[in-house]
Amino acid sequence: KNQGRLLIRCEDRPGIVSAVSTFLHKNNANIIESNQYSSDPENGTFFLRIEFHLDDLNDKRQELEQQFSEIATTYSMDYRFTYGSVRKKAAIFVSQEPHALVELLWEWQNGDLPMDIEVVISNHEIAREMVEALGIPYHYIPANKDIRKEVEAEQVRLMEQYDIDILILARYMQILTPEFVERFENRIINIHHSFLPAFIGARPYERAFHRGVKLIGATSHYVTNDLDEGPIIEQDIERVDHRNSIADLKKIGQQIERRVLARAVKWHLEDRVIVEGNKTIVFQ
Amino acid sequence: KNQGRLLIRCEDRPGIVSAVSTFLHKNNANIIESNQYSSDPENGTFFLRIEFHLDDLNDKRQELEQQFSEIATTYSMDYRFTYGSVRKKAAIFVSQEPHALVELLWEWQNGDLPMDIEVVISNHEIAREMVEALGIPYHYIPANKDIRKEVEAEQVRLMEQYDIDILILARYMQILTPEFVERFENRIINIHHSFLPAFIGARPYERAFHRGVKLIGATSHYVTNDLDEGPIIEQDIERVDHRNSIADLKKIGQQIERRVLARAVKWHLEDRVIVEGNKTIVFQ
Amino acid sequence: KNQGRLLIRCEDRPGIVSAVSTFLHKNNANIIESNQYSSDPENGTFFLRIEFHLDDLNDKRQELEQQFSEIATTYSMDYRFTYGSVRKKAAIFVSQEPHALVELLWEWQNGDLPMDIEVVISNHEIAREMVEALGIPYHYIPANKDIRKEVEAEQVRLMEQYDIDILILARYMQILTPEFVERFENRIINIHHSFLPAFIGARPYERAFHRGVKLIGATSHYVTNDLDEGPIIEQDIERVDHRNSIADLKKIGQQIERRVLARAVKWHLEDRVIVEGNKTIVFQ
Amino acid sequence: KNQGRLLIRCEDRPGIVSAVSTFLHKNNANIIESNQYSSDPENGTFFLRIEFHLDDLNDKRQELEQQFSEIATTYSMDYRFTYGSVRKKAAIFVSQEPHALVELLWEWQNGDLPMDIEVVISNHEIAREMVEALGIPYHYIPANKDIRKEVEAEQVRLMEQYDIDILILARYMQILTPEFVERFENRIINIHHSFLPAFIGARPYERAFHRGVKLIGATSHYVTNDLDEGPIIEQDIERVDHRNSIADLKKIGQQIERRVLARAVKWHLEDRVIVEGNKTIVFQ
Repeated sequence: KNQGRLLIRCEDRPGIVSAVSTFLHKNNANIIESNQYSSDPENGTFFLRIEFHLDDLNDKRQELEQQFSEIATTYSMDYRFTYGSVRKKAAIFVSQEPHALVELLWEWQNGDLPMDIEVVISNHEIAREMVEALGIPYHYIPANKDIRKEVEAEQVRLMEQYDIDILILARYMQILTPEFVERFENRIINIHHSFLPAFIGARPYERAFHRGVKLIGATSHYVTNDLDEGPIIEQDIERVDHRNSIADLKKIGQQIERRVLARAVKWHLEDRVIVEGNKTIVFQ
Repeated sequence: KNQGRLLIRCEDRPGIVSAVSTFLHKNNANIIESNQYSSDPENGTFFLRIEFHLDDLNDKRQELEQQFSEIATTYSMDYRFTYGSVRKKAAIFVSQEPHALVELLWEWQNGDLPMDIEVVISNHEIAREMVEALGIPYHYIPANKDIRKEVEAEQVRLMEQYDIDILILARYMQILTPEFVERFENRIINIHHSFLPAFIGARPYERAFHRGVKLIGATSHYVTNDLDEGPIIEQDIERVDHRNSIADLKKIGQQIERRVLARAVKWHLEDRVIVEGNKTIVFQ
Repeated sequence: KNQGRLLIRCEDRPGIVSAVSTFLHKNNANIIESNQYSSDPENGTFFLRIEFHLDDLNDKRQELEQQFSEIATTYSMDYRFTYGSVRKKAAIFVSQEPHALVELLWEWQNGDLPMDIEVVISNHEIAREMVEALGIPYHYIPANKDIRKEVEAEQVRLMEQYDIDILILARYMQILTPEFVERFENRIINIHHSFLPAFIGARPYERAFHRGVKLIGATSHYVTNDLDEGPIIEQDIERVDHRNSIADLKKIGQQIERRVLARAVKWHLEDRVIVEGNKTIVFQ
Repeated sequence: KNQGRLLIRCEDRPGIVSAVSTFLHKNNANIIESNQYSSDPENGTFFLRIEFHLDDLNDKRQELEQQFSEIATTYSMDYRFTYGSVRKKAAIFVSQEPHALVELLWEWQNGDLPMDIEVVISNHEIAREMVEALGIPYHYIPANKDIRKEVEAEQVRLMEQYDIDILILARYMQILTPEFVERFENRIINIHHSFLPAFIGARPYERAFHRGVKLIGATSHYVTNDLDEGPIIEQDIERVDHRNSIADLKKIGQQIERRVLARAVKWHLEDRVIVEGNKTIVFQ
């Protein structure tokens, strides 16, 4: 397509929107969608996401980027262009519970998740059949904490082989090492089965049951080296009550996990999510 | 304050954002919030709402507006400036059920609804005490369909006397004539006690009960001459079930009505609502 | 399993719960869950659903039912026993959009929908592969309004062949004749893609878009001969706004349709739904 | 009125419902609503709440209770009768933010909270006018951690003077001593301004802001001596995003706090809440 996106972060000061919109106008690009946010109009940080249309965009990319670098320098911008014609390459990691993977595969088949799923990696064999039926390579890599380094070396090798842009942890129940996480900063999306920061760590549904909460939730976030403390992309909840067993909470929770992860992945793929410190700006 | 808003509607074509943002930049106005929407990037209608800060804005208003008129002419813009220092003047109409009025009064006292409540008009005496306790004039105007013209003549007189900008029908149960409605086009906000377009007209809770719906709702909309068919500003719902009587639905519904009307009024006061045909654009 | 359910409807009068619970107690049945509802404690209709456990239930069914018939006669009860060991036999009808079918298949595979899916019937070939991959027969029956009688004759034949208890219309876009509907009274569950009674009939998302609603929904109901007017089992909604195109509404709506239909089917399978007039009692 | 409630907790074993319903039937009481829950049908704890109607109930209370004591002994029941004609006496504690108090006062005036508000106690003067306008005594008791004992001595004196059944902490920002809490076990209802167990303790909105959550909530719970760890009665949430400041979160949160506390109080007043360990059973 001839659709492009421009994402900008810089110190907020007068004239940024004027400079960027004038630049796009002069280059005959038509703004389709524009979102901006300033953490503070006085000396805060300014964020801008513009989606634009430009005829023959692929031929003009280099020139456009070159021209923009001047403006970027003037305003000390941290910026990036992305192009609708370039789909992101995804790897999905999964363990024993396939519900979140199933949702991603289905929405992807339905045309709702603009990515190429290059590979699925699992420490179990449970999802092999459904993944391979869609023509997606499935790599079984047994994992446990004693062989973490070897496992990750193999995973990194696959990420490189498939030139992966985004790693989706669709209920992958292994801890990742700091080395691994750093290598894919702000590119690993996890789904945690609680309303963070409640119930960080293991067995959140059991703990929600014993605490007697009246709502349970799920949280999708970028993975950092602080367990379940990374920047939150999306959260949602469902109502529960005293009649629900732990098994019920898990079933209800699966439905929440499915939709929360799928939304977060979709927004990431559309470059709507900007990480700022330990928080996200989501331009919807 | 030194805060202003610029609202624009025009045919979508390249260069609008560039022109407007460059104008504001040259006038030393700092953009605090900016929202835009195009009904169609090709030949659609373009809408823009900008909230800006400008030192000594009150002194510069005339000059700013004069200068902008050139751009407006170039792009054939329908536009309007509003100023944070000028609060809108509101009249609230109410009948027998005061819950929606109570919510407005409370949020207003709490500083959440930036308006001056100039007058409350009712065809009942029920809310007089609470209104007058806040120092707001209360006009009792008995009403029924046989004396509609006389009633409205008196109401129009009061609207003029108090120089009213916005009429809020907080469960006012009288039909307004086309003459009255036209006089205050897109300035009368009603709360209807159903999830429109379900249950248009009278007794929506009774009809919801008999239909056996599992959710009930409320809708805030601008009043037009098609009953309950005006542009919708906000809607919300609550879950109900077979155990709920009609009386229960009314109680539950009151809570929805309160918050839906208060939100719609707030967004209107902040110039976030733009009417386009029979729909609204709400820039949040 | 040794789990049974007893569903009762009768005129409300004192002593019913006492009689039924004493009967179960004397027969050594342990009440696991009990729900009751009276439309009016004075001369209303009383509804009771009891889930019980009884060792060797299958051997005792006949005796239990025989003994209960006396109480049923005394109180003029309309009642029915069902048994956890007897799974309901389902047929799923689908047209061109498979999302609701996909959800049902997935939840069924996951053990969340206690039914045997005997057959899937469609007027399109689109879902054949995924259905047959699960070992479920797929019958392609082209349909249009001119051949309705022939189509339904074939469908009825299949319903009899497979001894079907429940027909699920998972976005089946053909009108059924009164003869067909009557044959399966209160056993055909449909998903309608609007928040009924709003947008009855065709193209609800288009109409929701043009009306400018701020919430869209889906409704699962039993099919009657009044189009989209049958007893509602479940409804849900999602928030939308002016930025959403008709295509967006369809995508968002698919997610609602999926979960609303799956919930309604689950409750029907667990005998939690009682039809009373044109409404349902759902014992959760 | 002639309405009564019977609440029972005992070891689950066969025959309880039969015994209780037969008892009520023999005494000509008509069951209006009945809810039961068993933590485990085998050796679990059984809970029952029955709402019944009995002509001339006030004259028959003593006899009814006397007769029931036999059944209670047989099944080792922990039980209690309450009567619609006896309204609970409430004290409301509030500090500087009156929104939760305002909601309670309004719903109480509207007839939705069946209690007598005997007294409002505050360590600020802010709410005096609105409370006294309703004819409710207002006691200003300055408080800080250094004079906690004296403050509580005065508060206990007032609780005794007014014969208080339920203490509602409507954003009362002082810690209570273990002695005070124990004296009113399961009778002090607090509203905490977070989705517990997230953000236990002080400044939850600030912490929610800095954590970057996408939903904020409020929790109503019984007060125990573990801060914010008491049995949860009700919770609810609203969606927020990166644009919301801490001040916004507080405003949005106030709306959640208001409705969550009002619901919890209502259910407590209707004897729908049973505390079991650190959890609640809420019979709706």
